[in-house]
Amino acid sequence: MSFDLLEEVPLDTHGPRYLESRREAGAGDVAIYGVPFDGTTSFRPGTRFGPDHIRSASIVLESYSPEQDKDLSDIGYCDLGNLEVPMGPPEPMVALVEQCTKALLAAGMIPLMLGGEHSVSTGAVAAVAAKYPDLLLIQFDAHGDLRTSYLGQHHNHACTMTRCMEVVGPDRLIQIAIRSGTRDEFETMLAHKRLVRPGPTAVMVEQLKAAIAARGERPIYVTVDLDAFDPGVLPGTGTPEPGGIFWPDFAALLAAIPNRIVAADVVELSPVLDPTGCSSVYAAKVARELALRLASDAASMET
Amino acid sequence: MSFDLLEEVPLDTHGPRYLESRREAGAGDVAIYGVPFDGTTSFRPGTRFGPDHIRSASIVLESYSPEQDKDLSDIGYCDLGNLEVPMGPPEPMVALVEQCTKALLAAGMIPLMLGGEHSVSTGAVAAVAAKYPDLLLIQFDAHGDLRTSYLGQHHNHACTMTRCMEVVGPDRLIQIAIRSGTRDEFETMLAHKRLVRPGPTAVMVEQLKAAIAARGERPIYVTVDLDAFDPGVLPGTGTPEPGGIFWPDFAALLAAIPNRIVAADVVELSPVLDPTGCSSVYAAKVARELALRLASDAASMET
Amino acid sequence: MSFDLLEEVPLDTHGPRYLESRREAGAGDVAIYGVPFDGTTSFRPGTRFGPDHIRSASIVLESYSPEQDKDLSDIGYCDLGNLEVPMGPPEPMVALVEQCTKALLAAGMIPLMLGGEHSVSTGAVAAVAAKYPDLLLIQFDAHGDLRTSYLGQHHNHACTMTRCMEVVGPDRLIQIAIRSGTRDEFETMLAHKRLVRPGPTAVMVEQLKAAIAARGERPIYVTVDLDAFDPGVLPGTGTPEPGGIFWPDFAALLAAIPNRIVAADVVELSPVLDPTGCSSVYAAKVARELALRLASDAASMET
Amino acid sequence: MSFDLLEEVPLDTHGPRYLESRREAGAGDVAIYGVPFDGTTSFRPGTRFGPDHIRSASIVLESYSPEQDKDLSDIGYCDLGNLEVPMGPPEPMVALVEQCTKALLAAGMIPLMLGGEHSVSTGAVAAVAAKYPDLLLIQFDAHGDLRTSYLGQHHNHACTMTRCMEVVGPDRLIQIAIRSGTRDEFETMLAHKRLVRPGPTAVMVEQLKAAIAARGERPIYVTVDLDAFDPGVLPGTGTPEPGGIFWPDFAALLAAIPNRIVAADVVELSPVLDPTGCSSVYAAKVARELALRLASDAASMET
Amino acid sequence: MSFDLLEEVPLDTHGPRYLESRREAGAGDVAIYGVPFDGTTSFRPGTRFGPDHIRSASIVLESYSPEQDKDLSDIGYCDLGNLEVPMGPPEPMVALVEQCTKALLAAGMIPLMLGGEHSVSTGAVAAVAAKYPDLLLIQFDAHGDLRTSYLGQHHNHACTMTRCMEVVGPDRLIQIAIRSGTRDEFETMLAHKRLVRPGPTAVMVEQLKAAIAARGERPIYVTVDLDAFDPGVLPGTGTPEPGGIFWPDFAALLAAIPNRIVAADVVELSPVLDPTGCSSVYAAKVARELALRLASDAASMET
Amino acid sequence: MSFDLLEEVPLDTHGPRYLESRREAGAGDVAIYGVPFDGTTSFRPGTRFGPDHIRSASIVLESYSPEQDKDLSDIGYCDLGNLEVPMGPPEPMVALVEQCTKALLAAGMIPLMLGGEHSVSTGAVAAVAAKYPDLLLIQFDAHGDLRTSYLGQHHNHACTMTRCMEVVGPDRLIQIAIRSGTRDEFETMLAHKRLVRPGPTAVMVEQLKAAIAARGERPIYVTVDLDAFDPGVLPGTGTPEPGGIFWPDFAALLAAIPNRIVAADVVELSPVLDPTGCSSVYAAKVARELALRLASDAASMET
Repeated sequence: MSFDLLEEVPLDTHGPRYLESRREAGAGDVAIYGVPFDGTTSFRPGTRFGPDHIRSASIVLESYSPEQDKDLSDIGYCDLGNLEVPMGPPEPMVALVEQCTKALLAAGMIPLMLGGEHSVSTGAVAAVAAKYPDLLLIQFDAHGDLRTSYLGQHHNHACTMTRCMEVVGPDRLIQIAIRSGTRDEFETMLAHKRLVRPGPTAVMVEQLKAAIAARGERPIYVTVDLDAFDPGVLPGTGTPEPGGIFWPDFAALLAAIPNRIVAADVVELSPVLDPTGCSSVYAAKVARELALRLASDAASMET
Repeated sequence: MSFDLLEEVPLDTHGPRYLESRREAGAGDVAIYGVPFDGTTSFRPGTRFGPDHIRSASIVLESYSPEQDKDLSDIGYCDLGNLEVPMGPPEPMVALVEQCTKALLAAGMIPLMLGGEHSVSTGAVAAVAAKYPDLLLIQFDAHGDLRTSYLGQHHNHACTMTRCMEVVGPDRLIQIAIRSGTRDEFETMLAHKRLVRPGPTAVMVEQLKAAIAARGERPIYVTVDLDAFDPGVLPGTGTPEPGGIFWPDFAALLAAIPNRIVAADVVELSPVLDPTGCSSVYAAKVARELALRLASDAASMET
Repeated sequence: MSFDLLEEVPLDTHGPRYLESRREAGAGDVAIYGVPFDGTTSFRPGTRFGPDHIRSASIVLESYSPEQDKDLSDIGYCDLGNLEVPMGPPEPMVALVEQCTKALLAAGMIPLMLGGEHSVSTGAVAAVAAKYPDLLLIQFDAHGDLRTSYLGQHHNHACTMTRCMEVVGPDRLIQIAIRSGTRDEFETMLAHKRLVRPGPTAVMVEQLKAAIAARGERPIYVTVDLDAFDPGVLPGTGTPEPGGIFWPDFAALLAAIPNRIVAADVVELSPVLDPTGCSSVYAAKVARELALRLASDAASMET
Repeated sequence: MSFDLLEEVPLDTHGPRYLESRREAGAGDVAIYGVPFDGTTSFRPGTRFGPDHIRSASIVLESYSPEQDKDLSDIGYCDLGNLEVPMGPPEPMVALVEQCTKALLAAGMIPLMLGGEHSVSTGAVAAVAAKYPDLLLIQFDAHGDLRTSYLGQHHNHACTMTRCMEVVGPDRLIQIAIRSGTRDEFETMLAHKRLVRPGPTAVMVEQLKAAIAARGERPIYVTVDLDAFDPGVLPGTGTPEPGGIFWPDFAALLAAIPNRIVAADVVELSPVLDPTGCSSVYAAKVARELALRLASDAASMET
Repeated sequence: MSFDLLEEVPLDTHGPRYLESRREAGAGDVAIYGVPFDGTTSFRPGTRFGPDHIRSASIVLESYSPEQDKDLSDIGYCDLGNLEVPMGPPEPMVALVEQCTKALLAAGMIPLMLGGEHSVSTGAVAAVAAKYPDLLLIQFDAHGDLRTSYLGQHHNHACTMTRCMEVVGPDRLIQIAIRSGTRDEFETMLAHKRLVRPGPTAVMVEQLKAAIAARGERPIYVTVDLDAFDPGVLPGTGTPEPGGIFWPDFAALLAAIPNRIVAADVVELSPVLDPTGCSSVYAAKVARELALRLASDAASMET
Repeated sequence: MSFDLLEEVPLDTHGPRYLESRREAGAGDVAIYGVPFDGTTSFRPGTRFGPDHIRSASIVLESYSPEQDKDLSDIGYCDLGNLEVPMGPPEPMVALVEQCTKALLAAGMIPLMLGGEHSVSTGAVAAVAAKYPDLLLIQFDAHGDLRTSYLGQHHNHACTMTRCMEVVGPDRLIQIAIRSGTRDEFETMLAHKRLVRPGPTAVMVEQLKAAIAARGERPIYVTVDLDAFDPGVLPGTGTPEPGGIFWPDFAALLAAIPNRIVAADVVELSPVLDPTGCSSVYAAKVARELALRLASDAASMET
């Protein structure tokens, strides 16, 4: 285990920190890092402000989660700041995310990334899959993100899952709450039996459990595109799509995922679109629940 | 079938168009037209901006509906712009809406109107009932709109359903999600067994099916006052009333309506009241779902 | 019964009135009064504007409640304006609220207080418990408010329920929708079997009924901290916490409370945080439902 | 002097009051009354909320004006609430405003009206001119409001000055800060030498003094359409037009008007369009300055 | 003169049109076209929505300009819609803008471009300079935009003027209202005597006249970055910088430019950042004033 | 010189940092520190969020000031985070500010404090006056803040200058842009010849120079209450008062202050009140100009 690689990663520490996290990296920590990138956003940009708003909003939360009966004050977690990514074409950003995530893993840390648009996940998934080759990817999202390319770009946010599947393979993906896409995208999701449509909580939970069980015992990467939530309750996202999930759905679905989560991200918060600030609080609470899961799940996967 | 009458209708085409619709009218098309009128609005005005904001927001949607497994790119639809209606007393507006809707029907087109306040529906229902005399009217709304007159006006938005029933008769109306009104209005709705109160999705669906079945096989006009939705998720409406429906309710209720919808409208979006823009996206998705239903339902009614 | 004590209470009548209420006090009236205080608010202040915004928003409501089949025009109710409370330390405010509430009770009126932050409840509960010594307190809230002291303050909004229990005793409290707090707070709530966690409506209703039944037939004070509602639908509150209740939950839970409500309050609306104004409409409707319940419940308790 | 006529005027007193004004009318008072009407507004409606927002914002002001060295606490002023005017066609509203203003004058009071859209001025000017037949009208505005009719309406806000001149005559009008209109409107204003264009403060003041002097010693009615101010500093108005005046201009121009102001109004505040609330504060300060002028000017005109 | 080249340009006509412009191109027209691009924006993105919001806001304006005593209804002008530009790296966008502008000039039209971020100007200036090789460029802006490259991009918005000077030469640029930049940028501007600093109107006008006179009689391209205006009055821009100009400054400076303007653009409106909509009205009025100047100036340059 | 005292000061470093400042204190640095306190705010609270929003907004600025021809990259400056102050009564906060400021001075640093409401200045002025007993205080503000006590509080924001004068004496204060207060406050300011009323820039500059000259050569503390600016351009402040200064006024007035500024603060930013964020940018630029002045002025005072 070594922190050498991490020292080469360009991280901006001028912004705020998540809740009571330390700034300094510690071995075994859940490591929070932001990727303020929205260079391929097609409709309403602004996710570059997501990471810092998640942090600022976290102050309204307690460190204790009654849903998990766990407390952040009992785990090690740090907030390393934001990756210094250039705007414009996404390729350099994706490479930088991969480099950073690999450096974190090399140092024995557990990655919890804050986006940024969804294309930031590509680099992180690649890095995590390098450590856990049998990785299963579970995606909360309104959109399939299954385009091959979009507006001429290979690493566009609308292609994120296509890119990720090139790493983990088409059967190692489960997609929850998807309700917007082309007919082709839906036919593909149905053909691979990887779609958990929005529906009553209990139905979704059963479908998710079945989809996971069908894929065997694997380490899991959870990527939460916040537009999985209904835009009525979480309007701060660039491509809102009515018909999404609510908090009880998210909590139940997360609880249904086995204790094998080794990395996670929260993406697509566009805080300026929600003047109430509540979208940022939703995002911050998602991050807290993931951090608590990661701290126990990932530790158990190491042994 | 003739487009002659349509040429006499004053339509303003300076505004945006809905999704990928053509501007030019085509026989058999679902014809979108806006009525930017809010002259009788009693509380928070602004629905005059509804039609253009629905169009601008539609860009965030895909043309494909996974809920219906239909695609707008497979149907003919056009967006003819906005009726040029004067502000002030509503009578000239109502007459103009009736003229326009009749012209569309005469040209073999299927009307999908975007409001504007709810009083715009009166003219459209009159025109559609002239073609389909046994018309059934299904209303999504928070308010009964059953006043005889209101603030001294006959065609006030609070009287829309009273005016419509003068055309279709008191038993040809079904009212969904109504949760605000006088005691008189509620007693009337209950007496005529035309009220589907807000409640669990399955209960509402059953009540709706029963109410429709009790009225026989009729062509159907669907009018969606967007305040049927809960203001927590769709705040961009002038008379918000807590306790409304959510997207899954709307989708299930629409699916429960038989394939006989021949015309429809979406009214009461007041976009400036929702700075997140998500209310407009809700409205645009309602319009998409209605357009897809109209394209298949109305065609089948013609034969 | 005497209005003498009331005349000594400093009430500011420059602001708006709730719906069609009279300004003058009447014996037997449900008496609305505001407490524009937010001096201990730790995160986002602004609840001092709550009372007047609830009143201004009430204009969008009908006086008739279909859920209760009751009409405000059939009861006596007045709106006495806002208590003139100093900002700064909360002690003088708490004393003033207690004085005012006692004066109302002495005049045979039924208190319905509009906050302000939650610490305003302390004085009202003390006054009501002086008249009804066996009072049961039912709290809708996201937070336990069970700190002993907070940021050095005894009457902080985070300590409200601790203060109230010093009056009514630890077993005379039922807490609904709590989902944020320390591990200690949750262990206490569970130990006393007074917590109704957020969950499916029917489950919550059953838990509430059981908790009430276990405590015997008592007069009831209902305090509604509006952050009990999910911030997705009611964002205008200073400490938003995802995972809250929706309107149908509130309506069902209120209906499950026996007809023994003798006083109530609605607190923690921070209207400036919700530019759509819908949070204020939610609050105004909560107040209407409480007023209608108070008018019949409290009268029956007197006899 | 009699208050009899005033008792017949329908006034709604549910709303807030301006600063420390009394609700009850007193002989000699500056009488504030609101007209919440925006029925002819062509672009962005919402001025119906103007009167109450001016009152709510007034709380931020002191009663003392250093510019005039006068204090509201030294004058008699009351706030009688809002005229109960119907939406829809403006004629009934105009008649009601005239009735109310006449009743105020008959009771020896000094009218200070809060709009509402500009068409509310027509009735007030008619009433004041009935008492002061040689009345001079001074208008602050961005628009000439000189249409003969507009969108088919005689009493449209775009015609207000045409209607007023039918009462006072075309030479008894001075128009300040007008910068939007048709070529015809500008040619008319120039031909009658009644236009004070936006420009350096000193230049405007000289032009205004000359225009007043050229018209002889007359009692003066001041109507302030708030869009006279630049929309950059006062955005809360329905037809914003860049190039307007700033506060120092307004103060200097008001000071340049001789001490003969007998009535005044402040119109066209559309508060919902300015989420900062500062437009309402501007309006409230304009009202304070006018009230202080009216209290001394009108008294001197009576003798 | 030929419209052939224009037919090859990808233009999206789904959006709104500017005021009463025609959609169809006409020879000699002032041709409005939008470039909805913000791919290199470093701070607050959103200028991609600029062109359509300028058009929507234009409805509040009259067609007549009293400042110029000219009327849009007396000139030929069309609105061709928005260039279909890809997000991501700016090079394809710049090439497309150049192609479109050349096509307009080849058809005898006068370009008036609506941005989009400032990098859109590069392509337009190149095209106009190809027709008018002795072109003088006059820039209204808060920032010098004189970086050689920025965040690794050659065509970044912060480099626009560097790119333009590669076409017209370093002495053919005049920069007005610049108040933010590096010391190097300011030293360069001062060395070339091309800077008109913010200051009293008359001083700026004199400096501008002198700077123009020193450069000889040349055709002129005017580029208006809206952040030249003070953010206090025009907040809807991504990099606000206090200390900017106000409308009277802009009007006087524009009037001081000789009648040789042959092309112009209005860029950097980020409408979502200003919820009042007044920034868009400012932009729309700038566009009207430029259109009126272009119609007479450019015609005189042709002969 | 010693950093020992500073180590005892409770500073929260979770938030963002100002521009490119270091977090670590350095001898001779301009030391930025925030005081997130608004416990006595009487109207619209929210200044507790001021310090962090000034920091976040600073990213839009360059480090170079063309007005001063100085660059932050040439000076030493650090941002030590926010003082951990309790809400509620202001006395503990005032004591903590005094302690912190004294610790900074003891370490040879130059204080630049970010508020928070104006009462935060009291502690800082006391500390600076302990080092510089002949201190002159120059206040930019809309309000005199000359109450003896207000709403029962001694350290209320409305009393700040009364408290400060108890330290420096009544003749060591100059008040710029005051335009709101009681008659008593204005008579006091005029009697002491310490008022520079809002007016033309050149007039204000002359008055300021005369007032400073009349008080002899003294070290200077500059306190900038941001409501000195007109609320039309800087609406993000709790007690907006029309008629304030604009940026060119501020720049000229600051330039007119001799090179003897030894400490400064920027207070009363209430960022949530301005959704455009431009008020925060104004505040950040004020802070930059002050930091640059402090770096050279204070150094020269030491020698």
